[in-house]
Amino acid sequence: MSLDAVLARIDEDLPQALDRLMALLRIPSISTDPAFGADCARAAEWLAEDLRGLGFNAASRPTTGHPMVVGHGGSGGRHLLFYGHYDVQPVDPLNLWHRDPFDPELQDGPKGKVIRARGASDDKGQLMTFIEACRAWKAVHGSLPGKLTIFLEGEEESGSPSLIPFMRENAAELRAEVALICDTGLFEDHVPAITTMLRGLLGEEITIRAADRDLHSGSYGGAAINPIRVLARILANLHDETGHIAVPGFYDGVVELPDAIRAQWQSLAFDHQKFLGSVGLSHPAGEQDRTPLEMLWSRPTAEVNGIWGGYTGDGFKTVLPAEAHAKVSFRLVGQQDPLAIRDSFRQWVRDQLPPDCTAEFHDHGASPAGTMAIDDPAFEAARQALSEEWQKPASYIGCGGSIPIAGYFKTELGMDAMLIGFGRDDDQIHSPNEKYDLECFHKGIRSWARILARLQG
Amino acid sequence: MSLDAVLARIDEDLPQALDRLMALLRIPSISTDPAFGADCARAAEWLAEDLRGLGFNAASRPTTGHPMVVGHGGSGGRHLLFYGHYDVQPVDPLNLWHRDPFDPELQDGPKGKVIRARGASDDKGQLMTFIEACRAWKAVHGSLPGKLTIFLEGEEESGSPSLIPFMRENAAELRAEVALICDTGLFEDHVPAITTMLRGLLGEEITIRAADRDLHSGSYGGAAINPIRVLARILANLHDETGHIAVPGFYDGVVELPDAIRAQWQSLAFDHQKFLGSVGLSHPAGEQDRTPLEMLWSRPTAEVNGIWGGYTGDGFKTVLPAEAHAKVSFRLVGQQDPLAIRDSFRQWVRDQLPPDCTAEFHDHGASPAGTMAIDDPAFEAARQALSEEWQKPASYIGCGGSIPIAGYFKTELGMDAMLIGFGRDDDQIHSPNEKYDLECFHKGIRSWARILARLQG
Repeated sequence: MSLDAVLARIDEDLPQALDRLMALLRIPSISTDPAFGADCARAAEWLAEDLRGLGFNAASRPTTGHPMVVGHGGSGGRHLLFYGHYDVQPVDPLNLWHRDPFDPELQDGPKGKVIRARGASDDKGQLMTFIEACRAWKAVHGSLPGKLTIFLEGEEESGSPSLIPFMRENAAELRAEVALICDTGLFEDHVPAITTMLRGLLGEEITIRAADRDLHSGSYGGAAINPIRVLARILANLHDETGHIAVPGFYDGVVELPDAIRAQWQSLAFDHQKFLGSVGLSHPAGEQDRTPLEMLWSRPTAEVNGIWGGYTGDGFKTVLPAEAHAKVSFRLVGQQDPLAIRDSFRQWVRDQLPPDCTAEFHDHGASPAGTMAIDDPAFEAARQALSEEWQKPASYIGCGGSIPIAGYFKTELGMDAMLIGFGRDDDQIHSPNEKYDLECFHKGIRSWARILARLQG
Repeated sequence: MSLDAVLARIDEDLPQALDRLMALLRIPSISTDPAFGADCARAAEWLAEDLRGLGFNAASRPTTGHPMVVGHGGSGGRHLLFYGHYDVQPVDPLNLWHRDPFDPELQDGPKGKVIRARGASDDKGQLMTFIEACRAWKAVHGSLPGKLTIFLEGEEESGSPSLIPFMRENAAELRAEVALICDTGLFEDHVPAITTMLRGLLGEEITIRAADRDLHSGSYGGAAINPIRVLARILANLHDETGHIAVPGFYDGVVELPDAIRAQWQSLAFDHQKFLGSVGLSHPAGEQDRTPLEMLWSRPTAEVNGIWGGYTGDGFKTVLPAEAHAKVSFRLVGQQDPLAIRDSFRQWVRDQLPPDCTAEFHDHGASPAGTMAIDDPAFEAARQALSEEWQKPASYIGCGGSIPIAGYFKTELGMDAMLIGFGRDDDQIHSPNEKYDLECFHKGIRSWARILARLQG
């Protein structure tokens, strides 16, 4: 059977597939920091070149930000669009990395071999699972697995400013029957999943200003307002004692979990003690009247992702700073309206300012939550393919993260999206020492081969 | 009259005195940052060399931190010890400086010429007023104005870790009849003052830790505790709605202002609207049942001098950090016990920690408040000399800042200290674009000549 030949080819080509991933991981394509602009362009060109080698008509396509990689190839079967992103998160705090984040290494871990590097899991390792499945398919069959469009973004970790303009300008070219997105995880170490519920994301940066210069706390302390104190008080008010978020109207559009989904999630027997314990925690810290899975998948959050002000170097400086700053993000669910929440949040901050203080806001993106329709039989076909590869039944699950692209495929191109990925909870994505298990890379490639065989066979 | 000759010499030598100060200001002697250790040593050696040129037996003396400069010279009259510090504050945020902080320049300002550089006012410009007075005196008289010990520290801006050990080891050598300290300001632009009440200072650095690594807010947000949120809540609780400080026992030892001092302060007619207005503020932000001068001089404070955690660079990162940090300081008055308050503060923080969080503390120094005894007739003599030079009656005032050395001269060496300085409120000490008015430098030198004439004449 030809699928068996493809799977055998994947197994024997694994060392070379790993070398190719390592080459991509060596490119520091951090999209949020303009200093790495040329590296992002280099990663895009590397991918376009690799796709051209597989017979795709592929190119790195300019935008006002980082380039998009688009490749078209194959014929017959369903027209599938595959999406991934080649950009990565920043690497700070760099001192917590055990080696250069962009000098990837295959290491022995407690649960098997791991690929250690920034982007190993999010998302270079994941996107390469699909490309390697295509490569093995082509090696065995001489052609790609049906009509494919590959669409790789370079701004996923920095708010995707060019995404919607690019999709609109190239809608006819990008439109396919179903989208496949590889940027999510397994449910448990060996339990595959298709993610059908995604949280939205609203990012805001606040600057509180008081005096028109930094002041000496000896000369002014006691009489002059301190913007750090003002900011701390506002951020402290973001949650009440039970974990509820205090911004007026925040919960408008939050829907309760349907009973069917609630029952399915209960059957997952999520072990929150293990989940939290793996990162040194024990206590679910969200809304205290919700289960841990609800906190993660179906409830909205407010988080402070960064804070700074005053003197933060070695030693001590008795300064009253002129400014204090925070980066705040909200994970959104159901029908919550990101723009209405942004307005309400800004007004809520301004309403708490004492005399002499001002607040300035900087927008870091806003995307609504998404829920996939799973009526297309492609979902069930993919679920069966995943169950075969992993020898465990695959589930439809939620995801705490925000993958706005899934929503945009629906609203901009009219496509449903299947979110299938092979990351594990301990991959340390967005953290120092990110890794991707070699097993996930290997079985991820095999999973796509099985899915493509079912969808295109 | 010989004082007139000294004053005339000061006037004619002013350009050269300014050149010498500029040379000292070019040395970036930031004591809190180890990267500037060699510069601190260079500043100390520069001063020792200058003192040797005036006939002092002077040297830069090693400590486990930055060196002390000690010089002995002259004979007759009272034995006076003069104290200043040659180290300076860090310069961040550097982007708010209009020129290199260590490339001093004489500039035209709205109220006359200013010397612009880090340390121009705090404390290089101030300490040079005394040395220049000695230089002019020697030029006219051929000898120093009586028996003098010069004692210059290089760790004043970083908690003075070597100060007490050095004073104890060299007590016999340093003990004099009265100490003169030049590290304070005028009361108003042209109203001189002797500071007799100083606030103490307690510095603490807090680190709140939660998960054992940075987490992705998509994967963990909602279930994992965020240490920035914990820190913000604790800092928000530091003051109640009326500005009172909530640490248990904090007000133990705070004494009410004696009626006589209160009356004297009322007669100063302090214009808090002008004081705050000069830095873009209008509203006295301290304890709401106190006058602005009390907030600044006789009441204790709690301030956050720095805060940081999570992602603080350009763009956005949806991280839940493993740690959050703050630098907190307390200005102390009366008989407040810094060590008792440190213990109480740490316990108060720990009592507010939610599950899974820990707090670690780093000590940045602790000194009690000080009140000078003004019985020694030297105080009244100095007050008259200052009144003559500035043509306005000099006052005994309080000071919001902390100059622990004044207390140590009393406790370690049994000396009273006279705090006389020529800084102005708009000098921007500890801030970008620090300056010292040329008038203050010039009249400061003349003031010391008059004081020395009265004390030693």
